Amino acid sequence: MNVTFLGTGAGIPAKARNVTSIALQLLEERNEIWLFDCGEATQHQILHTPIKPRKIEKIFITHLHGDHIYGLPGLLSSRSFQGGETPLTIYGPKGTEQFVRTALSVSHTYLTYSIEFVDVKEGIIFEDSSFQVKAKKIEHGLESYGYRVIEKDLPGTLLVEELKKIGIRPGPVYQKLKNAESVQLEDGSIIHGSDFIGPSIKGRIISILGDTRYTDKSVELAENADLLIHEATFSREDHHLAYDYYHSTTEDAANIAKASNVKKLVLTHISSRYQSPEQLDALVEEAKSVFPPTVIAADFMQIDIPKKRSNL
Amino acid sequence: MNVTFLGTGAGIPAKARNVTSIALQLLEERNEIWLFDCGEATQHQILHTPIKPRKIEKIFITHLHGDHIYGLPGLLSSRSFQGGETPLTIYGPKGTEQFVRTALSVSHTYLTYSIEFVDVKEGIIFEDSSFQVKAKKIEHGLESYGYRVIEKDLPGTLLVEELKKIGIRPGPVYQKLKNAESVQLEDGSIIHGSDFIGPSIKGRIISILGDTRYTDKSVELAENADLLIHEATFSREDHHLAYDYYHSTTEDAANIAKASNVKKLVLTHISSRYQSPEQLDALVEEAKSVFPPTVIAADFMQIDIPKKRSNL
Repeated sequence: MNVTFLGTGAGIPAKARNVTSIALQLLEERNEIWLFDCGEATQHQILHTPIKPRKIEKIFITHLHGDHIYGLPGLLSSRSFQGGETPLTIYGPKGTEQFVRTALSVSHTYLTYSIEFVDVKEGIIFEDSSFQVKAKKIEHGLESYGYRVIEKDLPGTLLVEELKKIGIRPGPVYQKLKNAESVQLEDGSIIHGSDFIGPSIKGRIISILGDTRYTDKSVELAENADLLIHEATFSREDHHLAYDYYHSTTEDAANIAKASNVKKLVLTHISSRYQSPEQLDALVEEAKSVFPPTVIAADFMQIDIPKKRSNL
Repeated sequence: MNVTFLGTGAGIPAKARNVTSIALQLLEERNEIWLFDCGEATQHQILHTPIKPRKIEKIFITHLHGDHIYGLPGLLSSRSFQGGETPLTIYGPKGTEQFVRTALSVSHTYLTYSIEFVDVKEGIIFEDSSFQVKAKKIEHGLESYGYRVIEKDLPGTLLVEELKKIGIRPGPVYQKLKNAESVQLEDGSIIHGSDFIGPSIKGRIISILGDTRYTDKSVELAENADLLIHEATFSREDHHLAYDYYHSTTEDAANIAKASNVKKLVLTHISSRYQSPEQLDALVEEAKSVFPPTVIAADFMQIDIPKKRSNL
């Protein structure tokens, strides 16, 4: 599981930062990729990564501002052109479907796969045996969502050393025990798989928030997350601008991270007014003074979220 | 007057070539820029040129395929964000307005300037005292236009040496004569401006064609043009593909250039199947064997079309 930042700028593209898109790569977990927002030229950014558009199975849109959606029609077309055949689901505020369908229809684009649109509302918007995604409204002047991606706990590993100690050697019996079945041994005794499976492995939690002012609602989305991705359009000093334009400062993001007890905070959606290395260092230092495990995103930055250990 | 190629690829963006857009810079002539097509990330390409979005006053769309229009909403938004205040006119097939208005409205984008949409039909679609633009349908399976941009002839220059010979020195009288007025000299004699103005300077003609199969209709658009920009998606060898997908080969483009008696041909909209320098050289050689003054476009290539001399 890792996160790749495809665009980390605010409002309009700049040479150093494209407009917003974040790829959550779940290749090991699901052999698929989830995209969060899709600003213009997201497909161009993808050309410089190993990401294959046909592996993108879900796209989550946080809100409908152009810098978060204008890349959708092009990406969807290219996914088709490059042989994507599996269905795609797009979760977004009402209006997402109208935008995409109009663009595809006006341009006579016929896709090789089907799209299901889900109008996002607060609550659980996706769940299967291994993942759950919750959405919650945050504050951006228009409907804007934060997403909480929850990996379900994984079963513990088979305690091979314990089995060897009592003389049970690797073989088909191991698979049965791993499936928590009970097995009769040659001497007639019965052992139970549940006694030889370690504690379950805690699933990971990733919180990806759309554009927002500081709001306590974000804490609920971010609580105990392994990774919180929060916008920080402005510096601490420019907090009046942040408030007026429904954005956050570095300090706002750090306060949410601290209150939510997250493991790591990534600042993104950085205004192009901060460009020099000194300015960017200053931004991250502002956040670190409140919440030390903070980094600032850059286009193409990748963050691994390693699987937890059994005993955690 | 010069042409800057902002995107010269076909269908989907590639690292080496973005999807289609061509800027006709008329800074000296009109202090404005005209754009022909606007594929996704045209505004990103513009970041690497001296072009200012607010100088773009007209956008001509050849046809509605995504690789020619998906960059419109983003470019229009950025033109607003960067202080564009003058009205913009967009000429395109019916559907252009629906696409743009839906994108802007769904994304809550409010522009600082007004847009006039003109549904293109065959014939003269724009004319003022210095320029005329004609449109004509070509053959691409859906409505696709070629545009012929005609600069009107410019008045000749004042024959200063002739005036000096008869003793008339520079002063306000020169402006009157330049305006073709008649002037009474101190000795009572009358001279006529028209006698002291050189022959008019021929206007230039630029033909920019949308995607098309080979068609004789293109000749009417390109006749005697100073510059013909013609798609060449495929090599001569791949002419069956060109026909099947309503595209042209290098040789098709060269045959149009030759039949039209143009001065220069630029091949563009090159399929990403041709990438190596050898393959690209081969493409241009195929065209040159029919029409020698041919070049192949590359992203950011710029071609000047110098003002003609009076005696041409």
